[in-house]
Formats: sequence, C-alpha cells, structure tokens
Amino acid sequence: MTVRVAVAGASGYAGGELLRLLASHPGVEVGAVTAHTSAGRPLGSVQPQLPQLADRILLDTSADSLRGHDVVFLALPHGQSAALAAELEPGTLIVDCGADFRLRDPAAWERFYGSSHAGTWPYGLPELPGARDELKGALRIAVPGCYPTAVTLALFPAYVAGLVEPEAVVVAASGTSGAGRSLAPRLLGSEVMGSMSPYGVGGGHRHTPELVQNLSLAAGEHVTVSFTPTLAPMPRGILATCSARLRPGIAATGRDDEARAAFGAAYADEPFVRLLPPGQWPSTAAVLGSNTVQVQIAVDPDARRLICVSAIDNLTKGTAGGAVQSMNIALGLPERLGLPTNGVAP
Amino acid sequence: MTVRVAVAGASGYAGGELLRLLASHPGVEVGAVTAHTSAGRPLGSVQPQLPQLADRILLDTSADSLRGHDVVFLALPHGQSAALAAELEPGTLIVDCGADFRLRDPAAWERFYGSSHAGTWPYGLPELPGARDELKGALRIAVPGCYPTAVTLALFPAYVAGLVEPEAVVVAASGTSGAGRSLAPRLLGSEVMGSMSPYGVGGGHRHTPELVQNLSLAAGEHVTVSFTPTLAPMPRGILATCSARLRPGIAATGRDDEARAAFGAAYADEPFVRLLPPGQWPSTAAVLGSNTVQVQIAVDPDARRLICVSAIDNLTKGTAGGAVQSMNIALGLPERLGLPTNGVAP
Amino acid sequence: MTVRVAVAGASGYAGGELLRLLASHPGVEVGAVTAHTSAGRPLGSVQPQLPQLADRILLDTSADSLRGHDVVFLALPHGQSAALAAELEPGTLIVDCGADFRLRDPAAWERFYGSSHAGTWPYGLPELPGARDELKGALRIAVPGCYPTAVTLALFPAYVAGLVEPEAVVVAASGTSGAGRSLAPRLLGSEVMGSMSPYGVGGGHRHTPELVQNLSLAAGEHVTVSFTPTLAPMPRGILATCSARLRPGIAATGRDDEARAAFGAAYADEPFVRLLPPGQWPSTAAVLGSNTVQVQIAVDPDARRLICVSAIDNLTKGTAGGAVQSMNIALGLPERLGLPTNGVAP
Amino acid sequence: MTVRVAVAGASGYAGGELLRLLASHPGVEVGAVTAHTSAGRPLGSVQPQLPQLADRILLDTSADSLRGHDVVFLALPHGQSAALAAELEPGTLIVDCGADFRLRDPAAWERFYGSSHAGTWPYGLPELPGARDELKGALRIAVPGCYPTAVTLALFPAYVAGLVEPEAVVVAASGTSGAGRSLAPRLLGSEVMGSMSPYGVGGGHRHTPELVQNLSLAAGEHVTVSFTPTLAPMPRGILATCSARLRPGIAATGRDDEARAAFGAAYADEPFVRLLPPGQWPSTAAVLGSNTVQVQIAVDPDARRLICVSAIDNLTKGTAGGAVQSMNIALGLPERLGLPTNGVAP
Repeated sequence: MTVRVAVAGASGYAGGELLRLLASHPGVEVGAVTAHTSAGRPLGSVQPQLPQLADRILLDTSADSLRGHDVVFLALPHGQSAALAAELEPGTLIVDCGADFRLRDPAAWERFYGSSHAGTWPYGLPELPGARDELKGALRIAVPGCYPTAVTLALFPAYVAGLVEPEAVVVAASGTSGAGRSLAPRLLGSEVMGSMSPYGVGGGHRHTPELVQNLSLAAGEHVTVSFTPTLAPMPRGILATCSARLRPGIAATGRDDEARAAFGAAYADEPFVRLLPPGQWPSTAAVLGSNTVQVQIAVDPDARRLICVSAIDNLTKGTAGGAVQSMNIALGLPERLGLPTNGVAP
Repeated sequence: MTVRVAVAGASGYAGGELLRLLASHPGVEVGAVTAHTSAGRPLGSVQPQLPQLADRILLDTSADSLRGHDVVFLALPHGQSAALAAELEPGTLIVDCGADFRLRDPAAWERFYGSSHAGTWPYGLPELPGARDELKGALRIAVPGCYPTAVTLALFPAYVAGLVEPEAVVVAASGTSGAGRSLAPRLLGSEVMGSMSPYGVGGGHRHTPELVQNLSLAAGEHVTVSFTPTLAPMPRGILATCSARLRPGIAATGRDDEARAAFGAAYADEPFVRLLPPGQWPSTAAVLGSNTVQVQIAVDPDARRLICVSAIDNLTKGTAGGAVQSMNIALGLPERLGLPTNGVAP
Repeated sequence: MTVRVAVAGASGYAGGELLRLLASHPGVEVGAVTAHTSAGRPLGSVQPQLPQLADRILLDTSADSLRGHDVVFLALPHGQSAALAAELEPGTLIVDCGADFRLRDPAAWERFYGSSHAGTWPYGLPELPGARDELKGALRIAVPGCYPTAVTLALFPAYVAGLVEPEAVVVAASGTSGAGRSLAPRLLGSEVMGSMSPYGVGGGHRHTPELVQNLSLAAGEHVTVSFTPTLAPMPRGILATCSARLRPGIAATGRDDEARAAFGAAYADEPFVRLLPPGQWPSTAAVLGSNTVQVQIAVDPDARRLICVSAIDNLTKGTAGGAVQSMNIALGLPERLGLPTNGVAP
Repeated sequence: MTVRVAVAGASGYAGGELLRLLASHPGVEVGAVTAHTSAGRPLGSVQPQLPQLADRILLDTSADSLRGHDVVFLALPHGQSAALAAELEPGTLIVDCGADFRLRDPAAWERFYGSSHAGTWPYGLPELPGARDELKGALRIAVPGCYPTAVTLALFPAYVAGLVEPEAVVVAASGTSGAGRSLAPRLLGSEVMGSMSPYGVGGGHRHTPELVQNLSLAAGEHVTVSFTPTLAPMPRGILATCSARLRPGIAATGRDDEARAAFGAAYADEPFVRLLPPGQWPSTAAVLGSNTVQVQIAVDPDARRLICVSAIDNLTKGTAGGAVQSMNIALGLPERLGLPTNGVAP
C-alpha cells in the first residue's frame, strides 16, 4: 500500500522538512505540493536541498489542489488550518503542523492567539500516556509545537511519578528556523550569528499554554511554567533546560535514582527517546536531522531541584518528524517508518 | 602618570583580552607579557589580533619576569595565583583573574576546587553595594568569574529590594572562549558549531558557590542557586536567564513597576550597566568587545516569577574589562578609562 | 543478500559518517567497529548522534577485529591502510577513505607525504569517464579526497570538452570536520567561529597532486592547479570555486552555451550530480548530509574565464557517501542504495 | 579643535560602525544622526550596541538635518549621495561610503549601476601610491568598496613591482553584514549559518570595475579581474584570496623573496597594514573590529602563480574605519586617531 500525501505550505521550513522525510518514506508517494506567494515556481527554486523533487511545480494552496490525497499535511501560518481543513474530504487524514487545534482550553487560545478557538484534535505526541491509542485511526492530528515537544518530553515523567512540585522553570534555546522563513530584521544572519537573546519573556510566548496543558495533564493538577525561549546562533535545534523543586520526601542526595527509574520506565520502549547514560548530556548537534530526543536528568542537592534537559531537532522531531510519526501510527504503519534516528553530526 | 603593567598568562584568551584593553588604555604602559609553554615566542604568533604588541617576546611566567611593575594581572589556571603572588613586591597591585581569592568560605573552596583555600581578596565587581570603597587603594583584587558577573548583575537588585524568594534558577549560555584555550574535543569547532549543550548540571559548576555568595550577601540570607551553564555556538558572550519567585505581597500584574524601580535605582549611575528600555532584550552581540552589561526584567504573572536577563562579553566585562575597571578604581583613575562601552555589532 | 561490513576508525568524523549511512543501508549489516584510543568504549560515548549503534563496543583496530567481513571500510590516518589491508582476507572488499592508494605517481606521493608509495587502487569517483567499469567487482577502492571530489566534479567536463586551458585556479572553503577530530588550537570553536583563513597556500596541500592527476587525465595533458584551501566557520561542507581561461576560439559572450552543453552531457544520467538551472548557485547547506553534488557554471566575458562552482558535504559525498556509492557499484548493488540525495536544510 | 560630524544612514550597518568609531574618536563630536524609515526613533532601538548614543533621536535624512557640521558621512544606498551632497555647504567635508563617486570611467558606472555617472571624488584608500596627497585637504572623499579594499591591498604591490601578469583571479569570502541590513531570504540566519555560497559569479558584481580600476592604475596597463564573491557564515570579515601568474623571468622557486621585498617596501610604514611573518596566514577573526589589514603572500612554483591573501573587517577597514582614516588625513589629524589596530578575538 502506498499512501498518497500532499503538503500545504511546501515553501516554508516545516514544509521543506516534511518533504525531505516523505520523499524517502517507503510507504508514501508525494502528490501535491502547494504554496502561497511561490505558487507556480518549481520546488527546487525554493527548497534547493531537495533535488529529488526539484521539478515539482508548487500549486496554489487551496482545497482544489489538496483534494484526492490520503493524507494532507498543513504547514501554514497559525489560524489558516481550520478553514482549509473544512473543505477537504472527511476521510482524508489531516496532519496540522500549526497551532490551531493543539489547545483544549478555548480561553487559553483566545488569550494567546487573539482569535476564536477552532477546536481540539488528537495531539501528536505519541510518547505521552494514552496518546497512541488516540492517534490510531485518527483522521485529524494536531502536531505539537517544537518547544512543547522538547519540554514535555524532558519533564513529563517527573510529573507522572510525582517527583516535583507543580512549578516548572524552563529556559530553552532554539535555532532560528523555529521562527520560520519570515523576513524579520532580528532573524538576519548578521544579527543572529554570535548572538544569544531571549524573547517572549515573562510568559508571553504562545507555546506557554501548551506547556501548561501537557504538564498539568501529566501531573494531574495545574502546573505553572515559567518559560523563557532564547534564540541561538544555529539554524536548527532546541535545547530545553527544565527544572522544578523536588517534592518534600523525595531524596536529594546528588544521586538521582528515583528520577532515573521514573524516566527509564517512561522511555524504555520509546523508539525515538534516548535517555542518555549518566554523565552524558544532550546536544542539539547530535540529533540534527533525526527524530531522536535526547534526555538527561540530574538532581541538585543544594537547590533541591530536578534538572531535566532535552535536545531535539526543532524541524524534525519538533515538527515534521513528529508529524510523520503520528501519521504512521494513525495509518497503522510501523511507527519508525521513514524516520531517521541517527543524526547528522558533526 | 603612566602605570606600568604586566600580564601573566598572556597566551590565553583572558590574557589576550587584557592586552587588547591595556594596549589602548591611556594611563597604562604594557611591560612584561609572560606565558608558560609559549615562552620565547613573539606575542604576535599566539595573539595575531594584537599587531600593536606583535613583536613582544613572551617571557616565562615567574616572579622574576613580573617584578618591577606597578600592576600585575594574573590570568592563570586556578590554583596558581597564590604562590606567584607571594613572591611579588608587597606594594604591587595584583589583579587575579583566577578563582583563587574569590570565595570567603574555605569549605566552599575545598568542596569545589579540591585544594586548600588561599584566602579572600577584595572582590572586583564594583557595581555591588560597598564594593568601590573596598577597591579604592586595594593592592589585591579578585576578579569575579564570568558567569557570576552576568548573574549577579542580573539578580542582585531584586534581592537587595527584597522582591524575590531566596531560590534562584539560572540557565546561562556561554560562548566557547569561556572554557579557555584548552584542547578538549567538546570545544572543537566541528563539535560546537550548530550545537547547544549543557554541562556541570545539578550544581557542579565551580561558579555556583560564587553565585550563592554574591546573592546571599545581597539578600541578607542564604540564597540557593540552581545553575545550569550551557555551551553556545559563538566565541564570546554570556546570556544569563535568571528567575526567582516573587515574595508574597509583591504584585504580579504583568507590569513590573516595583522591579523596574529597584533596578533603575541600583543602576542609575553605573557607567557600564544598561537597564534596557521596556520591550528591548539583551543580546550578546550588542555587548561584544565592550565592558557593558545589558539588563532587562519581566514579571510573569502566571508563574509569579521575576525573570532577569543579562548579557555580557565574557572576556571583557566578564574578565579582562572587569579587571581593568577594578584596577582603575584601585589606582584612583577614572573608572571608565580605557574601557569601551560600545559593542562591535553586527 | 546482506553484506557484512566493518568500519576501522569508527571514532573519527569519517567513521561516524560511514556508520550513519551504513546503519540505514538496506543491504548492509554493520559488524565490527574499531578504534585506537577509544577501543573498549561504547560507540555512543564518542558518536552520540548514532543511537542505533550506541551500545556497540569499539574494538581495537587490528586485522583480528576486522577479519570475517565482506567489506571493510578504513577511515584511518594517512599511511596506516597498507599494512592493515595486507593482513585481511584477499577476497574482502577494502574501501580506503585515506590517501594511501589514490595517487598513480610514486614521486608525487613521496613529495607530498614523505613516505614510500603503497600502490594505486581503483579510484572511487564513479562520475569520471570509465570509473564505473573499473569499480565493478573491484576488491580494493581508494576513496577520493574531499577537495578532489568537489573540484574534479566542478571542472572535469570542461577539460574533457576542451573548453579551457590547462591552468586551473581553485579556491575552496571547507568546514572544519575536513580536518578531522584532531586537537589543534586552530580548530577550536573559539578560533573558527566568525573566521575565514587559508592554509597550505602555494601548492602545499596534499590534495594538490590528486587534483592535478584527475584534471590531467580529463584533459589528456598536464594541468597545473593553483589550489588554495580555506577554513570556513561551519562544521561541514566544501564550496569549490574553480576557474580556467577559455581556450582561444571558445566564445565568451556572457552566455555559456558551450559549457552548459558539455556539463549537461556529462551529468545527464548522474544520480548524485545536480547541474543547477541557470541563475541558481550551489550552497553547502543545500547538500548537508546528502550525497549530492551541486554544480553551476558561468562565463566571464571580460576575464575570458569559465568559472565552475561545486558544493558537497565533505563527509558524505566527499568521504563516506562516496565510499558507499563505490561499494554499491563494486558489489553490484543499486548505486543509490542507502544514499540520501536530499539535504538537511535549513 | 573638535570636529562636528553627522552620519546619514545611521540605522544601517555601515552607519552603526561609523558611530562606534566616531563616538570614541578623541577629535570628534557626533552631531546629527539620520535615517529614513527609522527617523524619529532613538538610536538605541536600532543600534543597541551603542549605549553611548542610545538616547539620540534619529532625524530624517535630509540636507536640513545634515547642514552645520564640519564633516558629513554618507552611508546611503548607491545612487542617493549625489543629490544630497549637492545641497550641503560647499566647505563641508563629505565622506561618501557609497559607490557613487568611486569610478573614473562613466561607461563602467553605467554598465554596472544602470544610471548616469555622478562624478569622481578623491579615493579614500590612503595606502595607494599618491593617495594621501590627494586626500589632504580634500572636501569630498569616495570611500572604497569593502571587496576593493581587501583585494587592492592584497595585490597592488605585485602590480607596482611588475611581478605578475595582468590577469588576476580573486575569490573572496565575506561576512553577511557586507550585504547590509536588507531583508532578503538568502540573508536569513537560517540560510546563512552552516553555508557557503557564491553570488555575482562571472564578473557581475558591482565591485568588479573598481577592482579593475585600482589594479590597472597600479600596473600601468589594463588588468582583468575574475572576481567571485562568496557569502560566508559569519557576520563580519572579508578574506580575499587573489592570484596571478608570475611574469616570465620572475623566479618561482617556492621561496618568495622578490614578492616579499616588494610587499615589504610597500607596507613598511603603513600604520594599518600588517604583512605577516612567513608561515602565518590572515584570518578575519584577527582583525574583527579593527582597522588592520592582514596580508600574506606565497609563490606556487608548480602553477607559477603568486598567491596574495588579505583579511579585513568589512565594516571597519572595509567601510567605516577606512572612512575615518581618510577623514583624519583630509583634516590634518593624526592618521591613526580613533582607529583601533587590535582586533577583538577570539
């Protein structure tokens, strides 16, 4: 069986990464590739890294272009997915890389996105408890944000195991592709290289409510997340440094036995999560281009905090790889199919 | 009056930065430059960025080479300063860029450095309350570590003003020069570029006790610091993202009036600290090569935390610039003399 | 049929890239992985980007470890392949990523490498005329150097077609992984980032005689090559900017019809060479992690020169990918098997 | 005497660098700073690296804003200088960082810039023979382009000494700030980092006629220049790798005595040119933020070419530093005044 897929938003970074993965996915045939301002141009002129598909002509992003596929991936600006999804055949699997259908709480959506809530779709983070059941056979999937992928996988086993208090502090560094291909002065190479800077400080980043949602579900109580994203001088990658105070009664001896057991159990059978051996720390370079998440933990006995660090490729596991992984599950394909676990390093 | 200065450890990154600043300092004449394995070579062969001093021959690092100067800067590996300092003339101003004399608590020294404590010298962070008085006329100065400089200046006004609880969480990104010129595989360009990774996680970094010391003094009570340093793909710069929970009774409305007032008061007359206007965030690029610290703050109303971010050049304000600033104060020279405030950007 | 392969030198950058490709190669089973100083350690501790093979223990690089495989890849320092190869079973396919067997002229070897010449093996650049015939069924393959791969593929069709004079000028920029994992100060991240610098200027680089050999064979006469390699602030990639004067009688009108026809013919059926459409130029980012070569040409009518530019990933097409491509041909496997053509960008 | 200067185009990269230098220039007082779309904003919001001038309000770029200064620096898009210059007081020293007045040949201007030629001003490259005489007392100065600065200083002594043939081949790598602050997709950090790519290949770059002009003047005959610029993953710096065939009769023994003598003589008294000792090669990092040019040469005995390499900071010696150096000469100030020779490295 070959699944015929379309990619809307094929001229952006998420769209390009989707096509990189899908073009070598053995169960998939790439159909329509669509774009907005680049419609009519060959894909090779906007995604020169994809010679396999270089001569494909970008169609206009519309329901007409996207109909007739088994799967449609949407890699569109936030707020554009709902209207387009409504026009597609009901039996099509729609995998939305945008934010529109991630949040359960309409009020959170409205506060952070300023528009009315479109709804909630099954959440494409298979590593969460129960997620695979929800994804199997699903026809609508909301792919998590890149930061929520990294942070949730760094922290949720600690909340499931009741190790830490419901106040998480997260500082994450992201490569510039996380901001997309938009022409903002702060994203110019001249500004970015050699520079680290924060943005959306104080809870303003739109991924904050998604973090709160995920960790609260894991904890079974409301978790606050102090989230500071920073822009790092690299094209790809997220390093999430997360911590929370150990609950009273949890040992803080400098060893991390309880935490390691909890994370070990959570990730024992996960094909894409690698809990590193003690002493080895995640690096974004090690996961470049792969769907792997590197996770490591440590207990700070003086500060009585558990520190959990994860590294992902924001475009692969953080977006396109996570999307393909969820598609595989939804369609009953082997979950690893078409997804590299080895990174391109150095 | 021209002050005659020597630099021990002139072949390293801190030594090179000291010489860059001292060579253009109008009150200074550069005397001996010394090194260990590079002794006998011209400075230009190891510090090609310093044509002004290219033909100087590196002497062996020894008391013989360093005697006869008004000021001696030590930029040596930790643990080597005390013995050398003991051999110099008592009237010489010795400015130690190493860690040996920074800590007040011998137990903290022994725990983190594993040797016996050499003593405590006046601490070269002039922006701390009372520090300038201690530095005026001093003959011994311990230059702060680069992380402690960034973190202390990001946080201490909040502790002085009693705004936050004594549990700080710090995640800082540093350029690779912070690790010195040592030939470690993890510092190779191939490993570093495109990569973010943490190290010394869980309280293990040697700058942790210095952070605790500084913030505890500001708070008037013991402050714990959960400190995670990360290595960023840039040669220079530290971005310190620091936060702590607001004390009960401190408003958390999303505005930051109280905190802004506290920081504004602390830094109103500081020549090298720039509290940025609201909405503008620090970046390491903006302070490259300068002695400036950029600071910005925000209140997260949901997490009830104050987030304080600072950016410095780890080699300038974080090491050599801070050293020269302290020297200026000690000698009664204008504090700004020879110290650039404008950065080299983009 | 599954081919059992071993990799000697698995702790280096070339070895890591070989394993990345081989681990996902559908016709291959990875056997022994060997190293020198890292022997005894798990592969995951030195190649953290390879979770698929993380628990493999590095054996000592010796004939004992390497015997019993169908294919042995050697990724060793220059000069170490011959002795080891002599100890392996005669029927083993040995693919040498080192320089030992690339040159035909013993005098050139001795001049540039300072030791006695070990011999000449079939040359693993399948795109050269006649190369595939020589590689089919071969039991010994010398993988080209990374620069020679990039430069030869940029220029050789112009020499085959008789378009240019036998004096090529080449300036190539390489990412730092081209220098291997050696701990040299000039390869530290602090030195490399933000910096471009040349090395081996004036014909001293060891790849020069290989360039001369390849282009002379294509031209049917001796070609001189002025070759200047430069170190660029990126982990991977080679951009080779090559040029030569047009022969008298070749039109130089600013159009490039003759040259484009020659390159078009040479590369029409090549699976890994992409002659870009007019107006689009190679970039190393576009080929990252792929076995693709991007090539573009232009005629400068004023200088009467043909400028030929190519981009490769030095570790993939420039080393490990080229090695696997040649192995595929030698073993009669489909040439593209296990080799990505799409790059990881941005 | 304090000279009152204005900077038009203060929101761009060249303007920012001019202000960095002028703000610490002991003979200068910074007056009006002007911009186009950023007019009305404080300088600190667009040039956060300049705390010394952060509160200055950007005026509109107009003759009204710029009148009443001793010196006006123009850092405007090409083609905008002539009209503005015509409106300023005749006695004002105007230093134009744009291209408008660099070329002597109106036909070359029209071919490369597509508009009518505005004229020719004294050329601000003091190191060229006779240039200082022309600059002394000048009221109009055309600052050279960044590539022409690097390439001319790498090559002209070879042409003055008659060592090489009149066909130069130049491949230069530039940091992204050379392209200015324009919002082009190819200048995004995500596209630039990890990537090298050429542009303007085949003689199309607008700096080509300026290179031809400079080298032809030095040679006393027409010199063709095959010029390929490449974009390098760094914010600043130009590394120019230049070569030309040795004239018949010039020895090519692998030593470089004749060439070294010629370059040594040309640069013996130059305050900003450093001919490196044999064996040491230029790097852009070593000149970051400084007005220094590093130059090195080698003879390739096989290719019979002289290879000349230079490194500059494109914004300092390549633009703003060269402009201030010329201003100093024009006004009779010490040539080095306010110009750093030591770079910010690592």
